[in-house]
Amino acid sequence: MSQSPSPVLLSDLGEDQVLTALLRRVQSPSHIMGAIGPGDDCAVIPVPGSTSDWLLTSDPVIAGIHFLPETDPRFIGRKAIGRAISDIAAMGGTPQWIIINITSPADLPLTTLERVYDGVNEMASAYDSTIMGGDIGRGLDFALHVFAIGQVPHGTAILRSGAAPGDILYVTGELGGSQLGHHLIFSPRVKEGHWLREQGWATAMMDISDGISTDARRLMQASQVGLDLQASRIPISAAARQMPDGLPPLQHALNDGEDFELLFTVRAEQAELFEKAWAEQFDLPCTPIGQVTDNVQRFRIIAPDGQPQDWQDQGYVHFSHGSDLSAHKSP
Amino acid sequence: MSQSPSPVLLSDLGEDQVLTALLRRVQSPSHIMGAIGPGDDCAVIPVPGSTSDWLLTSDPVIAGIHFLPETDPRFIGRKAIGRAISDIAAMGGTPQWIIINITSPADLPLTTLERVYDGVNEMASAYDSTIMGGDIGRGLDFALHVFAIGQVPHGTAILRSGAAPGDILYVTGELGGSQLGHHLIFSPRVKEGHWLREQGWATAMMDISDGISTDARRLMQASQVGLDLQASRIPISAAARQMPDGLPPLQHALNDGEDFELLFTVRAEQAELFEKAWAEQFDLPCTPIGQVTDNVQRFRIIAPDGQPQDWQDQGYVHFSHGSDLSAHKSP
Repeated sequence: MSQSPSPVLLSDLGEDQVLTALLRRVQSPSHIMGAIGPGDDCAVIPVPGSTSDWLLTSDPVIAGIHFLPETDPRFIGRKAIGRAISDIAAMGGTPQWIIINITSPADLPLTTLERVYDGVNEMASAYDSTIMGGDIGRGLDFALHVFAIGQVPHGTAILRSGAAPGDILYVTGELGGSQLGHHLIFSPRVKEGHWLREQGWATAMMDISDGISTDARRLMQASQVGLDLQASRIPISAAARQMPDGLPPLQHALNDGEDFELLFTVRAEQAELFEKAWAEQFDLPCTPIGQVTDNVQRFRIIAPDGQPQDWQDQGYVHFSHGSDLSAHKSP
Repeated sequence: MSQSPSPVLLSDLGEDQVLTALLRRVQSPSHIMGAIGPGDDCAVIPVPGSTSDWLLTSDPVIAGIHFLPETDPRFIGRKAIGRAISDIAAMGGTPQWIIINITSPADLPLTTLERVYDGVNEMASAYDSTIMGGDIGRGLDFALHVFAIGQVPHGTAILRSGAAPGDILYVTGELGGSQLGHHLIFSPRVKEGHWLREQGWATAMMDISDGISTDARRLMQASQVGLDLQASRIPISAAARQMPDGLPPLQHALNDGEDFELLFTVRAEQAELFEKAWAEQFDLPCTPIGQVTDNVQRFRIIAPDGQPQDWQDQGYVHFSHGSDLSAHKSP
């Protein structure tokens, strides 16, 4: 083989580009009746004889990327499980089974791992999920890889690809500044996702892990539509306003990531009814922040003065400058 | 909390001890009807409405532990998938769905990962398994964490716990010296495991990943029996005889690990019939290497001169000196 003088490194690419390049090398699951493979928050697998589909997801939580050396190990465990459960919530599913792989340096105290598992148990129990085992191996990284299985009634999983022009884009909770604490202490939106699916409100849905500037674009691309985001409507968290770096709070709300809120679309003609029903059901805020357009692949943010701005290059997750790291490195 | 002056580190413990300590912190799945949790090659999950149980397993493959920097990336991919499929084979199951988490330094060339995935695709395709996605994160380690799901007819998975006194212990293939190549290039024994289950021969079964000295002990402990191993019957591979370190080939066959052969028990009264049926079915050797006893938890090796030796402390996998690493560090 000829050696290229400057090969493409992972750091030259976004996470999505790397995964897309890799998945091109493997057989597509599209030939399997009803199965939905890579590209959504979970894979969806029909089970012969069962009235449920199974949802599969996996999430890594790595020291230095997703948590700091001084992070209380209990919160590492909670976060690792919470991230995977949030993926299942984003399909409207119910989490059920969990397997955990650990890598760890050999000189880690056992009590640290035990405390991680106390956090694992707290989060899993809170969401009626059962730890079914896993494996452990020595590595340079201290990392947890969580593999979770959930269920959803057959054919009802809410995908990223269901948004249509005219739909209203909503987000739960408030966004930004997660590094001040929220990225470790959050509640996956399982009951909200379940309700959105069961009541038939959501046409497309995902969770916000990498920031709305990245994740809303993913929803737009999956649905093959365009998206206009209203900057003035973005619900900015108190933490986003308290960030010590002096950047505008809106920027934090758009880009920080690890909010683990739900981002979803509702048909415009149902929006009023939906907002009323939501308010009766939940205390959690739910905010309309934009609208799906037929400007395919055009992602615009409408500034507070009404000026639309194209968002072609902003907010893209690069492997070397991912929102995960920027959100969690020491301030 | 009071700080112990010398806390217990992972390096002070065996892998099994660490996992046992951790799983004590989480709710047991034993309350869930028919589910079998941690402690076997796979977890077993009954699926309401389905005639099949699902098998779940996870395996890490980490640079410096499971492969060397100069390893052809294609074989890293093959090995990562093969290990997980071998776990499913060890339950008598059929592999089906796979999810892969990757951690990687940012300066890894994309072509390296692509080549890993070519190997992933080769092994998955050869065993009719489908890659359903996964995630990627930056880390110090280059590692793959493979989560695999398989199926087995409801209630028929072969567990480690089914051996009874008198049963004959068998092993497929030949053992030892895997670091000379076998640890990268092996065929998970799916069709053999399937046949052993379907024909009702195997009373207990597992695969050999950490060496028979460790794995046969695990089977013995799970079945709450004793075990007498005949040293002269252990099938020693050519590679075990070619190892450059001058250690006895038998020692390699017992301790090296990563053989990915099947270790299983058959009722003594069926042994003769079984051996005949096996020979008609497969070219792969299958060797009786010992017998289950009622000396509970007593693991003995019978030397070629007929002398039994207790094996209380030998061959135990320590986190800091695991067979994985000893098998793969540079010769």
